[in-house]
This record gives sequence, C-alpha cells and structure tokens, in this order.
Amino acid sequence: MPATPIPSSFLILQPRFNFNFKPILQSLDYQFSSSSAAFNGARNFFIPRFPLTSNARVHSNLSQATATESPSDNGSGGGRSGALSPGPVTGDVQKIDANPPKGTRDFPPEDMRMRNWLLNSFKEVSRLYGFEEVDFPVLESEALFVRKAGEEIKDQLYCFEDRGNRRVALRPELTPSLARLVIQKGKSLSLPLKWFTVGQCWRCERMTRGRRREHYQWNMDIIGVPGVMADAELISSIVTLLKRVGITKSDVGFKVSSRKVLQEVLRCYSIPDNLFGKVCIIIDKIEKIPSDDVKNELKALGISQDAVQELLEVLSISSLPELEERLGSSGEAVAELKELFSLADKFGYAEWLQFDASVVRGLSYYTGIVFEGFDREGKLRAICGGGRYDHLFSTFGGDDIPACGFGFGDAVIVELLKEKGLLLELSLQIENIVCALDLDLQGAASMVASMLREKGQTVDLVLESKPLKWVFKRAARINAQRLVLVGNSEWQRGMVGVKILSTGQQYEVKLDDLE
Amino acid sequence: MPATPIPSSFLILQPRFNFNFKPILQSLDYQFSSSSAAFNGARNFFIPRFPLTSNARVHSNLSQATATESPSDNGSGGGRSGALSPGPVTGDVQKIDANPPKGTRDFPPEDMRMRNWLLNSFKEVSRLYGFEEVDFPVLESEALFVRKAGEEIKDQLYCFEDRGNRRVALRPELTPSLARLVIQKGKSLSLPLKWFTVGQCWRCERMTRGRRREHYQWNMDIIGVPGVMADAELISSIVTLLKRVGITKSDVGFKVSSRKVLQEVLRCYSIPDNLFGKVCIIIDKIEKIPSDDVKNELKALGISQDAVQELLEVLSISSLPELEERLGSSGEAVAELKELFSLADKFGYAEWLQFDASVVRGLSYYTGIVFEGFDREGKLRAICGGGRYDHLFSTFGGDDIPACGFGFGDAVIVELLKEKGLLLELSLQIENIVCALDLDLQGAASMVASMLREKGQTVDLVLESKPLKWVFKRAARINAQRLVLVGNSEWQRGMVGVKILSTGQQYEVKLDDLE
Repeated sequence: MPATPIPSSFLILQPRFNFNFKPILQSLDYQFSSSSAAFNGARNFFIPRFPLTSNARVHSNLSQATATESPSDNGSGGGRSGALSPGPVTGDVQKIDANPPKGTRDFPPEDMRMRNWLLNSFKEVSRLYGFEEVDFPVLESEALFVRKAGEEIKDQLYCFEDRGNRRVALRPELTPSLARLVIQKGKSLSLPLKWFTVGQCWRCERMTRGRRREHYQWNMDIIGVPGVMADAELISSIVTLLKRVGITKSDVGFKVSSRKVLQEVLRCYSIPDNLFGKVCIIIDKIEKIPSDDVKNELKALGISQDAVQELLEVLSISSLPELEERLGSSGEAVAELKELFSLADKFGYAEWLQFDASVVRGLSYYTGIVFEGFDREGKLRAICGGGRYDHLFSTFGGDDIPACGFGFGDAVIVELLKEKGLLLELSLQIENIVCALDLDLQGAASMVASMLREKGQTVDLVLESKPLKWVFKRAARINAQRLVLVGNSEWQRGMVGVKILSTGQQYEVKLDDLE
Repeated sequence: MPATPIPSSFLILQPRFNFNFKPILQSLDYQFSSSSAAFNGARNFFIPRFPLTSNARVHSNLSQATATESPSDNGSGGGRSGALSPGPVTGDVQKIDANPPKGTRDFPPEDMRMRNWLLNSFKEVSRLYGFEEVDFPVLESEALFVRKAGEEIKDQLYCFEDRGNRRVALRPELTPSLARLVIQKGKSLSLPLKWFTVGQCWRCERMTRGRRREHYQWNMDIIGVPGVMADAELISSIVTLLKRVGITKSDVGFKVSSRKVLQEVLRCYSIPDNLFGKVCIIIDKIEKIPSDDVKNELKALGISQDAVQELLEVLSISSLPELEERLGSSGEAVAELKELFSLADKFGYAEWLQFDASVVRGLSYYTGIVFEGFDREGKLRAICGGGRYDHLFSTFGGDDIPACGFGFGDAVIVELLKEKGLLLELSLQIENIVCALDLDLQGAASMVASMLREKGQTVDLVLESKPLKWVFKRAARINAQRLVLVGNSEWQRGMVGVKILSTGQQYEVKLDDLE
C-alpha cells in the first residue's frame, strides 16, 4: 500500500499546526501520560472546554491575510505568484448578525440532544398508543388558517405572497392541514384514523416565557370516533408522556370542560348557532382582558345582558354536580363530562383531572370536550390543549367526521422541567476514538475506523496529527469508551493499541479481533 | 366500579353505528370466525383497504344535516329544542383546496414511514461517524443567503418581509446557518466540530424529477480541519449511507475535482481572485446552457479568449495524470486530489471515485475539493454534493476556519431507490389490539391497554363497539401480533382472552400475567 503523502495544504496553510506535534508520539512504545488518567472515571462530570489557542491563532492569522488581501485584489488583475493559498471566495465581506432571527432558535449539539430527547418521547408515547406518524407542508395556503371567528391565531400568521402570487403561510397549527389531508384522501382511508405529528409551527407574537415565534408541537388526533373514549384516550397519552419525563399529578393537572356547556346556555337564550365560535373566542380571553371588555364584546355580538350574565355565571362553575344542577342532567354536556371522568378513573389518571367550565380554548373549531394541561403552581401558560372538533371538515367543504385532538408545544414543558429540576444534561457519547500516531498512518487509522463502523460501532476519527494530550481531552469531551491508537510497529504486526478509558486498562489487539 | 355509561352523543349522532353490533359478540364464549383466519399468516402481504361503508353513510348524512341546518340558522335566533346535536362551528363554509401547495408534500402514514426510514438512516450513519446533530431556524435572515456571485439559489429564495419589517427567507440550504452559529459560539467551541443536520430546505424553482420546492437535506460538516482527511471522511460517510440503503458502486459514483484547478488556471492568466466565485458559478452551468453562452458570460467578466479556451480545455480533463501533466505537480490542486484518492483506497471506497475536472458545484463559497454523487445510468440530477469552504466564515465577518461539508437531499435518492427496486413498502406494526366485547367493558379495556402500555407494549385500543369481523380486519391492517379481548365473564374472573394472530392460538390469561 502506498504511504499517505503529507497534504501540501497542511504544510503551506497551517505551519503552526505542527506546533504540538511531538516526535515522541511516533514512538511505538507509547505511554499514556499520568495527567490523562485524571479524565478516567470523571467522564460525565468534567467535560472541559478548551479553546485550542494554537488553532485560534492560526485562524485569526488566516483571517487577517484575507482581510488585507481583498481590497488590493479588487478591480484590476492582482494575480499572485508563489504559494497558492486560496483567496476569499468573493470580493465582498458582509458582516452578518450571528444571532438567529427574533423568536427563533439555533440548536447547538447540547440543545439538539435535549430537543431529540423530548421529541422522541412524544413519538414513543404516540407509538405506544398505536398512532401513526404523519406530516404536512410547513408552508401552507393561507386560506387554510383564516377563519372568521376573530381568533388570535389569524393576526399572528407568518404569511406572504409567493413567486406565483399565491398567498401562503407558515403553519401556526397542525389541525387544519390534517383535515385537508383527510379530505384529500377521502374514502381510501380506513376509519378510525389515529395520527400524530411532531412538527414546527410559527406564530408572530409577543414573546413571553415558554413562548417563542417558532416552536415544535406534538399533535395526536383521532378521526372517526364520536364517543368520549377517544377524548379519554388522548388525555391518557398526555399523562403517559408527562409521567415519562418525570412530571407527577402534583405538578400538573388538566382542566376539562365541554363547549356544549356554552352551547346549551346559548340555546336557552335562542342565540344563533353561527355565533357559537365567536362567543367561544371572546370567552377564551376572559383571563387575559378585563371582564367588562369581555361583556362588551359579547353584547356587541347581539347577546342580551341576561344571557351574558348567565354565561359568565356558568363559566365560573368548577364542580360537575353543580353544573348538573344548573343545566339539568338530560343534556350532552353533563353526560359526556361524567363519562370522561369515569373513563379517566379506568385509564388511571382521574386524579390529574378537574372540571372547570371556564376552559373553552382559543380555536374556533372545537365543538365538544375541551381540555388543557396546566402547572399547579400557576406560573406558566397552558402546557397543552385540545378537544373535539366534529365540524371542522364541513367548514372546509368536506363531509363531517367526528374528530378530536390536542397540541402540546415543546416550550412550556421545558420551562416546567427546568422549574422542577427534571431537565437532565444529556452528554455526547461516542464509543471509540481512533487516532493515528503518525501522519503516515492516517490512512491506516481510516481503515480501522471503517472496520469498526461496519461492525456498528460509533467512531470519532482524529483527522489531524495531534498530541496525545489533545486526544485524551477530546476522548473525555465525547465520553469515548475506548481509545484505539494506530502506531507504526503495531500496525506492521497487524495490531492496534486499545485503552479502555473507564478503567485505564490498555492492551494490543489484532485488527481482525477488534470488535 | 361504576359501569361506563353509554355516551349520549353516540346514540344521538350515530344511530347507524350499531348497525354491525351483533348481540352474539357480547357472548362470553366468543368464537373467532373462520373467515378471520384468512388474515393469519398473510399479514405483510394482504393489507386490505375497507372503506367502512356504514361509517361513510353516517358521515354523509351528518354532512347533509349540517348543510341544510346552516342557512336557516343564519341571522335571526334559530335556537332549537330537542337533542343538542352540535351545529357547525362557524356560519361559514369555505371550500379549500385539498392539495398541498405546489412543490410541497403531505406525508400520510405510508410516506411518513418512508421518510423516517431514510432520515433515520442519515442520522444513524452520522452517529456512526461520531458527528453531533445540530439545527438552525428554518426562517433565517435573507442576508444570510444573498451572495453576489450570481448563484441560482439567490433567485429561488422564498423570502418576504415579516411583521417587524425584517427581510427573512425560508432557508434554501443549511451551510450559511451553520457558519452563523459557529461565529456566534466563537471560542467556546472545541475544534474540530463534526456536525450534522437533517432539515427542511426550500427553493422556489421549476420542478423536475427528484426536485421539489421543499425537501429534506442531510448535511455533514467538519469545521477546523484543513487537511484532505476531512473531505475523505465525508465521502466515506456518504458511501456508508448508500451501502446501507442498498446502493452499490455500480449504481452510483462520485465525481471529484478541486476548485484549486480553476484557480491555478485563472492565476496563470492573472485573473483577479475576486472573480473566482463568479467564474465557478458560470462554469457550473456548462451542462445546462449552450457552451457559447458560457463563453460569452466568461468574456463579459473580462476574461480573455485565451483564458476561456484554456479553462474549458482543463475542465474537460477526466484523468488525474493528465491534469498533473497540464498543471504540473507542484500545485495544491493535484497534490490534494492525489491524497484524496489514496485515502479513498484506505477507507475502502476508491472504486466509487473518479476525477472529473468539470465538477465545480453551484455554490460560490467552495474553495478546494468539490464532489458530487451521480447515478451511473445518468438519468437523474446529482444525488449529493459538497466540498471545502475555507473562507465562508470571513465573508460573514468572522475569523476563517477551514471547513468542508456536503448536502444530500431526500428526493433524488428516493427516485434512484425506486429505479433499482430498492424502496421497500414499510408496513405499520402495532403489537396489540385491545377490544371490549361489550360497550360496558370499554373502561375495562382501557385498563388493559394502560397496563400493556406501561409494560412498553404498543396497543391499538378499539374505541367503539365494533363487530369482531371489523376488529380482525383492523388487526390485519395494523399487523397486530395479538388480539386481546375483554369479555364479561372473563373480566369477572380477572381474565382476558388472547389470540396470537400469526398462529391462531387462543387462550385466556390472568390480567396480571399479561406481559
């Protein structure tokens, strides 16, 4: 096999890169320095950050060279002779804002591990419940989200005209897209559908704790089941998720009501059904704006003083027997709520649930049971919310299908987990770090890495000539289980050196026996 | 325990739902019908679609009721007495387009399984290589993507002004965001970084086979390594991915070159470095537009006839020895390419690689090695592409750091897998289907489902009263391993009925012993 030539760019561009390259490392009888042992057994506690000062120097040198080079090269033909150190890509330097746009997030590795942990928990719970994952375009037709009930969501749309002059919007929620897909698929679908989505949504709104302009939302929906069993199953899945991430019933509860409570009151006062959505949206603001404003908005819809009074009184009820007393026991609202509490008992989450007539939720399409998860300390916004939307399909021009679902964002739950000290720092873990002890052996190290990866082992291959001290630091940072060293004399004998980093045990092993 | 009340909505809204509800199913000595046995052992082959005609009828009835109800209720107070069948959510029906916006996709369950399979393959390979996952906002500042080299990507931006009058864009690629994050994190990062992303990108362009306006892109980037080992490691990871999904070296190859080839030619003709990016972008169009147009565009930049001729001749070289003959062996271009081929041999993918000077790639920021994956039958666009971009950071106003990476979309590879017959139909698989044999036992079935889920078993809980024939069909559709039936007499004895669907074996088991 031909020896790997020393890369010329390495020598020309990075003369200082060899600064730490000690000839002793090329020795075949490599010794693990005693200082590196300090990393053993402390892998999850001590993950040092080391800014690699020698690298940093090289970079800033490079950068200066670029900066001085650009202006003189502009315009006339300033071709250079000598070493072909590449010039800047274009003539222009454009200082950018290094922060992500307002309300959005970057996910560096540590945050990404957290996001994956949470989003995978959503997915695992959904699969436990036998739900199938679906997704929809992030960019949807604006018309899908614009309803006439005065919802907050409409004013917060990220919408624009695309190059084909179509009005489009970044989805603020997932349910309308789901309804669109169900309508599109039509009779080819076997009901009931149990679908879940974990997807990004946008709302251009004022940012508060646990609310950004972009977030991930977990949705589960059951399409085609009219009975309360479906609503009960959904809440059960949320409880399972909460338990899985360490939340208990003393941290979180669910407020449950039914929009049919409001509907029954409205019908007593002969208020037309087509005002129902608007009334719900106004009433949902009851904790956000002064109650006189709520009253005035209701009156502006043409609802009488008496009806408004009755509505507000009923909304203050937080006991199911009291509701039954007020509305009678023949209506659907009371019957469904009673059934839900009975099922909650069977599912095993009755203690998480409480009736609260003031819960109506802020989306106009809900028709029946509605619920929201809240932190019992009352510090945060709703953790999740959902309900039954039996008529969304017909408002889109499709045939109605009974349906219910919920949305559960990734922001408030993380705030709560932080509050409760339940947010674990997840560390990177790579099984092997493979390192050549000699620049000439980088090809050999590549072979070793490839072999291990073919056996399913995760490998961080050291891509440069680095001192062993550096390699041990990196091994500690990535929580490597073992270090595989490719040295010249071992390699000639078909062997590599192995050090188990947790125990310090070190040995030589035949390449073929490396598992 | 209180019996589960029959949900009133069930009776009122869905009178025909009981159509198939046969009293015999309530019998304790349930028998599995012989017809259902046909589903045994055929679970991956025969997954029938059954449109549930009785359901469909109910739905269209509901829809008609809604349609006739709405107008009469509009305006004056048309309150109704009698059963509280909920009215439409709002007064307005707005027929929507059931298709996703042009160039975007829905992911119904079967497509989502495919997407998950492919995207998880990307992630698994990245982890094998010790890369850490990162992500960035989908909505970025427009300035991040607008370079002055005349790239196609700039004209295809989905960009708009947000509510705060900021110019924003849906990201067309991931690399600029990565560079932004690296600049933001600055010295807190330990180099080298090995980062990967699997994220959605948008380009508003004409759609062709394997190209939509929205796609998922897998990126792997190595930040802080100047040598060719990094480029070689990246191509190795792509080969690992391709092998994993069933693609061989006779299906796909990589064309490799270095932008330093062009640079060396340009410098021979004293063409200023600041034209380099623009020249690359023009040359990248060589297979898309007539060569006379390419020549004219180059001349318009002020490049002499001779230089253009030389450029085009060098670009036609597809043998490394020939290139060495032409450029001499002292330059970086030839040295790096030779090293790459040598390393490819060690990594074990030399046979996938071929030198082709015509490869320059369409992004202006590449500075060194560039490569693209192509199908050997020449039917499709590039499968993936990447290269070294050692100066992107300084064009953003940061310190330069040597870097390289690639992008690999989810569209062309799927086309290729289809071509090769390698795209498997992935079927849904849920371990258990749990069903109450009596409406009164739905709460009991919930308990059974909860128990199994707590043990980590996936469960599809039947949420309605359905005939056993329906349950068997559903079990077949979801590829359930076993059916757990909750019948009255068994339940009273603390038992449930189990049927193993692959063998037909059926037995009773104590609830506590159900694993």
